[in-house]
Amino acid sequence: MRNIKLLLAYDGTNYHGFQRQENAISVQAVLEQALGKICREPIRLATAGRTDTGVHARGQVVSFHTMAPIPQERFPYAINCCLPADIVVLAAEEMPAEFHPRRSARAKTYRYTLDTGKFPDVFQQRFAWHPMYSLKRELLVQASSYLCGTHDFAAFRAAGSAVRTSVRTITRAEWDFVDDPLWHFYITGNGFLYKMVRLIVGTLVEVARGKIPPQSIKELLGCQQSQYRAGPTAPAKGLTLWEVIY
Amino acid sequence: MRNIKLLLAYDGTNYHGFQRQENAISVQAVLEQALGKICREPIRLATAGRTDTGVHARGQVVSFHTMAPIPQERFPYAINCCLPADIVVLAAEEMPAEFHPRRSARAKTYRYTLDTGKFPDVFQQRFAWHPMYSLKRELLVQASSYLCGTHDFAAFRAAGSAVRTSVRTITRAEWDFVDDPLWHFYITGNGFLYKMVRLIVGTLVEVARGKIPPQSIKELLGCQQSQYRAGPTAPAKGLTLWEVIY
Repeated sequence: MRNIKLLLAYDGTNYHGFQRQENAISVQAVLEQALGKICREPIRLATAGRTDTGVHARGQVVSFHTMAPIPQERFPYAINCCLPADIVVLAAEEMPAEFHPRRSARAKTYRYTLDTGKFPDVFQQRFAWHPMYSLKRELLVQASSYLCGTHDFAAFRAAGSAVRTSVRTITRAEWDFVDDPLWHFYITGNGFLYKMVRLIVGTLVEVARGKIPPQSIKELLGCQQSQYRAGPTAPAKGLTLWEVIY
Repeated sequence: MRNIKLLLAYDGTNYHGFQRQENAISVQAVLEQALGKICREPIRLATAGRTDTGVHARGQVVSFHTMAPIPQERFPYAINCCLPADIVVLAAEEMPAEFHPRRSARAKTYRYTLDTGKFPDVFQQRFAWHPMYSLKRELLVQASSYLCGTHDFAAFRAAGSAVRTSVRTITRAEWDFVDDPLWHFYITGNGFLYKMVRLIVGTLVEVARGKIPPQSIKELLGCQQSQYRAGPTAPAKGLTLWEVIY
């Protein structure tokens, strides 16, 4: 059996997340169906990470086993012909049998985009959150500086998640203002809790609009009894799975 | 009666063009309905120029007459509350009675975006055309250099248009490669024939892929008996009404 890795981008607006589910359209189901046609056998995908409803990907990684004798460099062209315009396969590579897109990954980077223009940019409305507040850059930068390192992110976890530990290591948490008034937040870590990035961004926006001090982030990290609460959860549409690092 | 000018952006993907029509949703109809609610009277818009189905606008200009006593700076906020996310009013200004968005305009700029990446950029799929050919920048630049000046654009006019003259003056026709692999073409003129920009871009792409020589553009300008034919028409989705110049 060949183990094929795909690099994938999608506009998540019209999907109920990545993961296959009953009675709702998912990226996984659409992709598995397209792959099934190409490979002429049922295909089941493994993924580097699920994305929620409305979340996008620029660098999602998936893999699947197949007997199909298609050359690896032909896979993207063949699959893209069977996919809707909002999902694109960017690269395919045959991997050793032990490769798994999630277990083999060292880290992941997400990008969250805020649209801070006076009015929303119609061309970015699917990919950016336009908060109705005036935000201070320096507060965002200061508050984000506390995120790097190994911390207990229990305060930044949505209800309903059942993982053993909420300790995660963040190696990058920085803002890029080059596309101003679009502000991009890049966060890289060895793992993320359920809705963690959106809860972090929602809290950073509370800081940036002056509702809570930048130090509240520090307090919320590893401290379940903070005088502050994390959140709200920033909208899904601003979030993009940017890169999976191996 | 007050004469209110609005600056407007829209993602044209979901509209059958700007102009109001029977049995199809148009930007004009949606905007007139929202304005009718705000102003509490029937509103009829004048426009700087219609855009076709699927064409976008970053700087469309419209105007309307109203008795409503709303301060001009409040108009964008009030109207945007009643509009879908893909239409945004960016500014409002009270104008002299004689102002008309089309008749008062000196020139218009359109932008056409080509996505020349190996695979389509999913985040630009609504706003860029991804031709399946390999394109040469220098051929695009050379061919476009013939466009500036006053020429007869009869060859770049879609069938069915009924205007007195097909002579137009183009003052800017240039490519911007800064967002490579997205290539932006900016064209400014005192007027444009029906589908003229898309026919020009379609022809430039034929040049850039090596099907016809750059000089064919020169021949097609003012010469109805060229050995070449203009077109095909580039897809609507890559075109944006960029700016109306007064």
